[in-house]
Amino acid sequence: MFESAELGRKIDQAAYDKELPALREALLEAQFELQQQGRFPVIILINGVEGAGKGETVKLLNEWMDPRLIQVSTFDVQTDEELARPPAWRFWRQLPPKGRIGIFFGNWYSQMIQGRIHGHFKDAVLDQAIDGALALEQMLCDEGALIFKFWFHLSKKQMKTRLKELQDDPQRAWRLSPLDWQQSKTYDKFVRHGERVLRRSSRDFAPWYVVEGSDECYRSLTVGRILLDGLQAALKAKSRPAAQPHVAPMVASLDNRILLDSLDLTQSLDKDAYKDMLAVEQARLAMLMRDKRMRRHALVAVFEGNDAAGKGGAIRRVAAALDPRQYRIVPIAAPTEEERAQPYLWRFWRHIPARGKFTVFDRSWYGRVLVERVEGFCQPSDWLRVYGEINDFEEQLSNAGVVLVKFWLAIDQDEQFKRFKEREQIAFKRFKITEEDWRNRDKWDAYCDAVGDMVDRTSTSIAPWTLVEANDKRFARVKVLRTINDALEKAFASD
Amino acid sequence: MFESAELGRKIDQAAYDKELPALREALLEAQFELQQQGRFPVIILINGVEGAGKGETVKLLNEWMDPRLIQVSTFDVQTDEELARPPAWRFWRQLPPKGRIGIFFGNWYSQMIQGRIHGHFKDAVLDQAIDGALALEQMLCDEGALIFKFWFHLSKKQMKTRLKELQDDPQRAWRLSPLDWQQSKTYDKFVRHGERVLRRSSRDFAPWYVVEGSDECYRSLTVGRILLDGLQAALKAKSRPAAQPHVAPMVASLDNRILLDSLDLTQSLDKDAYKDMLAVEQARLAMLMRDKRMRRHALVAVFEGNDAAGKGGAIRRVAAALDPRQYRIVPIAAPTEEERAQPYLWRFWRHIPARGKFTVFDRSWYGRVLVERVEGFCQPSDWLRVYGEINDFEEQLSNAGVVLVKFWLAIDQDEQFKRFKEREQIAFKRFKITEEDWRNRDKWDAYCDAVGDMVDRTSTSIAPWTLVEANDKRFARVKVLRTINDALEKAFASD
Repeated sequence: MFESAELGRKIDQAAYDKELPALREALLEAQFELQQQGRFPVIILINGVEGAGKGETVKLLNEWMDPRLIQVSTFDVQTDEELARPPAWRFWRQLPPKGRIGIFFGNWYSQMIQGRIHGHFKDAVLDQAIDGALALEQMLCDEGALIFKFWFHLSKKQMKTRLKELQDDPQRAWRLSPLDWQQSKTYDKFVRHGERVLRRSSRDFAPWYVVEGSDECYRSLTVGRILLDGLQAALKAKSRPAAQPHVAPMVASLDNRILLDSLDLTQSLDKDAYKDMLAVEQARLAMLMRDKRMRRHALVAVFEGNDAAGKGGAIRRVAAALDPRQYRIVPIAAPTEEERAQPYLWRFWRHIPARGKFTVFDRSWYGRVLVERVEGFCQPSDWLRVYGEINDFEEQLSNAGVVLVKFWLAIDQDEQFKRFKEREQIAFKRFKITEEDWRNRDKWDAYCDAVGDMVDRTSTSIAPWTLVEANDKRFARVKVLRTINDALEKAFASD
Repeated sequence: MFESAELGRKIDQAAYDKELPALREALLEAQFELQQQGRFPVIILINGVEGAGKGETVKLLNEWMDPRLIQVSTFDVQTDEELARPPAWRFWRQLPPKGRIGIFFGNWYSQMIQGRIHGHFKDAVLDQAIDGALALEQMLCDEGALIFKFWFHLSKKQMKTRLKELQDDPQRAWRLSPLDWQQSKTYDKFVRHGERVLRRSSRDFAPWYVVEGSDECYRSLTVGRILLDGLQAALKAKSRPAAQPHVAPMVASLDNRILLDSLDLTQSLDKDAYKDMLAVEQARLAMLMRDKRMRRHALVAVFEGNDAAGKGGAIRRVAAALDPRQYRIVPIAAPTEEERAQPYLWRFWRHIPARGKFTVFDRSWYGRVLVERVEGFCQPSDWLRVYGEINDFEEQLSNAGVVLVKFWLAIDQDEQFKRFKEREQIAFKRFKITEEDWRNRDKWDAYCDAVGDMVDRTSTSIAPWTLVEANDKRFARVKVLRTINDALEKAFASD
């Protein structure tokens, strides 16, 4: 979920300076329109990793807009008055009225994440707190409020560098955080529990935006644009904003193609190295599948990728390692009549392996957010809500001991063109290339966007995506096998 | 929540026989239309107290409709195959396809309630399970499914009688339930945890219907009518049923006025008895409010009732017992400008007492489901969703140690007429009677419906409604004071 907020996204100062004036003016205008209409309040939640620019961004928003119409609330230690009342009272008393913007720093999410990190309670109680927060947000939205939830993220390394800088800055070193961020463990726990919170609390009426915090220009511009888009849409909508949920990518990005562009597709293996490594990994997989500990687990591997990226070849190399009784390969094509009469996920649930078994999905439940989205086979509301359903589905698998590996096999356009041409030449491969494949190529950019969103919203610690550089088939196959083996070993080790 | 399902509602056999043929025909017709359209599946969940007619009702539905288009699933002990997969797999494989009806007996709710009763887990894990169920139901509704959730209820006494009958019936005695219903404690736990489940899992897209189970004719007709209404509405709607949530009362009732009609308004106290009892209860309240244990609690009393039912007089008798520094009386009238700029509950949150203090609300957050509903001051969607918000709000108060007592002061129409006339005569009371009061009288029935729904949906074990027979003012005042005292004592005792 945080992968694409660790890519080191940057905007140079010149581009920033160029865009800023128009953005500021538009924001200011939207803010006055908000006040004039007086129809709904705006609530901005600020959360995330220490040093990722939370405070700086809030400061900036107050500079960009009219600070008289913004109220910033921090929620540190509870006052006596607050302690004498139900916990939510402190938030209710700080709610911005209609026409105003309220920025909530250290809000309900910070409290629950801190409590979980400090071990005051376990996941079940954390989930209760998340549901409480969602009920509050749902109510606020039903009453017309527009809610933005920002999560500022830094990689561990970036955070350490940043904290060092802050420490050396006498103007800032005094700031105390209730968490000891100097400890490496704190970061890990924060990110782990934070991911659970984000996964469970991102709803269409109040989505999370994960913002990479290392570059100030990128961070500020991203937040500014999201606010502006959301405000303008809500101000224009005649009905209440709640009726018009944000259509928001989980990870705020000025350019969604960055994720795939960041792959080094030149990686390759020569024939000999490939032969050796393949043999090693296949033997490893065979051993692992026969391991006694496999009885407590099942294995599910999902293969998605560009057309002609080599999914079939990779799957064959995996299968070659195994006894056919151990695995089943499920190719996902157009749904059958029976499947069309059921909810979307039904066709996948029916193939979930029993413990000890392995199912390979050749294309999968991600079809809805890939081909169905891009080709317009379903409504935006359908593919937007399926992200949540998928995360929920995969959490259920994981809770039941299923080890889940998900591959996106990526090739570039040149390589795809070459392979298409080859397929047209070779008789027995000709059936693999159709008019449709050529048409899909025209939608390359749309597919990149869809893949970016998919990874942002569904790559979780329990079911991470593995992006496989597949211009070189040999490299890809070994990486696939090794990833499966590593995942199984990790699951066995944590039993 | 179960109060109004313990009133002993009945329908005589003749009325039943008269209505049945038309109902059966309409149900059958709807069922075929469902199949013809093939647009959505229907899922019926059957839960509730043992002996309340769950099995009989399902049997009946199969007789009334075409059983070939109904699939009944029971979920007892998991099979080996089910145990080897994630828990939800067993439900997925039994989902009815579009155009069919699936009846789920012993579904996800039975499992979680049983687990809680047997002490396998605590409330936090129960809440997780409830949220899991809601996520599943939400997804099913998003995919078009129409869901009915029936809870069959019996009072404890009714249940015991019923179990005795069943035991003596050789055809039924063999039936085994995973809970030991013979134990009195089992019933109490079942109802307590059941209430939590119902409170948290009744949503507009999948509401609960509580059906009083003691009278077969009443029970069967109620279920039949609810199904028919829901089916017909969904079949008529062009869009997906999910977009058209049921507008369902939590407690299924053929006549909503029964609750208020069941009160014995002739109860009264003579002057001497009143004087003595009032003195006793006032002294008791004064003592309790000074009790050391009060430091851990706050007290909130809500007064609602018919116009001229004597709320003011009752509140004065409560206040008379206390030091003015201990309590505050908050009269709720039209919202101020500041309050209108905030979510509905904000105006009540601001008056929540600190620990040790007492707030009396003269009218309250129930205004939205009473006067605002009846007078059409807000949209049905607003007052429908506020039931859930109120339950959530009151749960937060209760969790923070607030003792909450809620009174509905009920008088009959004759008594109200008499009091209105009196007020017109007495100079200093004349300001208390306006044209509006006379107009409200015309809406007597609509108010009865609103009160019935309100009590059904918001009388919970943590914040029960007390219906006060107020034709006799003296009787009412003593009952109010005694109820407050009992509630405080109960809270202190369970500390």
